[in-house]
Amino acid sequence: MTSTAPSNSHIVPSKVRQHIHIPAREGRGVKLAAGEYIRIIDLEGQQIGDTFAYDVNDVNEYHSAPHTRAVWSRLFPRVGEAFITNRRRPILTLVEDNSPGIHDMKIAACDLPRYTADPPYGLGVEGWHASCQENCEKVMADFGFPNIVVPQSINLFMDTPALEDGRIAWLEATTKPGDNVVLRAEMECYLVVSACPQDILVINATQPSPMAIDVLG
Amino acid sequence: MTSTAPSNSHIVPSKVRQHIHIPAREGRGVKLAAGEYIRIIDLEGQQIGDTFAYDVNDVNEYHSAPHTRAVWSRLFPRVGEAFITNRRRPILTLVEDNSPGIHDMKIAACDLPRYTADPPYGLGVEGWHASCQENCEKVMADFGFPNIVVPQSINLFMDTPALEDGRIAWLEATTKPGDNVVLRAEMECYLVVSACPQDILVINATQPSPMAIDVLG
Repeated sequence: MTSTAPSNSHIVPSKVRQHIHIPAREGRGVKLAAGEYIRIIDLEGQQIGDTFAYDVNDVNEYHSAPHTRAVWSRLFPRVGEAFITNRRRPILTLVEDNSPGIHDMKIAACDLPRYTADPPYGLGVEGWHASCQENCEKVMADFGFPNIVVPQSINLFMDTPALEDGRIAWLEATTKPGDNVVLRAEMECYLVVSACPQDILVINATQPSPMAIDVLG
Repeated sequence: MTSTAPSNSHIVPSKVRQHIHIPAREGRGVKLAAGEYIRIIDLEGQQIGDTFAYDVNDVNEYHSAPHTRAVWSRLFPRVGEAFITNRRRPILTLVEDNSPGIHDMKIAACDLPRYTADPPYGLGVEGWHASCQENCEKVMADFGFPNIVVPQSINLFMDTPALEDGRIAWLEATTKPGDNVVLRAEMECYLVVSACPQDILVINATQPSPMAIDVLG
């Protein structure tokens, strides 16, 4: 069964084979085989998970927001549709969405200059601040890739809609404790999730909180 | 004068110092000094120009659509606002828009698999097809960078709006012959424009045509 059309025909394993806790403001990763399922969980609610996926055989191939939009002609895939790589291959399919179904794929992962640069380019924070980009870089360095391209993140649970006039609004995430999505790996890949440390804007209700990755099967 | 707020206070030079013709389906580039102005022209109308900019001092820094959206909270900058790099610095400011003002920054540059992969990932074309990604790679190789990351393009004149329900429509470009935009380099950069060779979808009215870059001053 390919993921060429929205479908709920995937059989999601019910057992949790590995539980990975993601402390607030940190990132964690896991190497997935093709066909494996994972559940990404917002444990306490109103928490965004910046998600990344890299091909194990060549980390220069990774999930890509602009390629995914081009394939599905949508701002975000529907359940049954896959995130596509920068080489136009499916890497992760969105299999279940047990959340309000509001996600973002327009905004870059937060990075150090997002916090420390002067407005309008950054938020004018003094000193170091945790960021989803640094979290992704750390996880991928632990996997053996110290100099990685960090692609535009899949921002699970992030409520930053495109308005009719072209503006983007920054709203509090609407998720409740335990809300989650299930993804299926379409190729052997490194999956990274960062529990977004953004505490200046309201998107995490200004209280970054932990998340979890359950590997199923 | 910085580009922190929309403004028309730039004084655009009236003289054309260098005229660069871009044949249909091809790409061309130019190295710009900080402060230089260029005009990108749709010569015959209904033609999209995929535009890219790289920092001359480190080509791992380049214009970035998701960072630009984050800084301006908009799907596309307004006149007076700058395109931002993946390190949160302004690289090109949109100074004048002498066109219907419809541009895209949601969709990846077309690449070979966009044409040759089987649907839904590609368009099922047999054999080689020109692409904006290959055009950018060729230009940057000529500048001495054979292995470049091709960022998500700034798709000038491309009419692919985000609809209210999250879908993206693919429409014919609405530009008339001679429509153009003026950009100002905010740092020394390589600028690349590809006259998009897309002739399967209707976005170039299925008739790819030439463009031009005028370096002003």
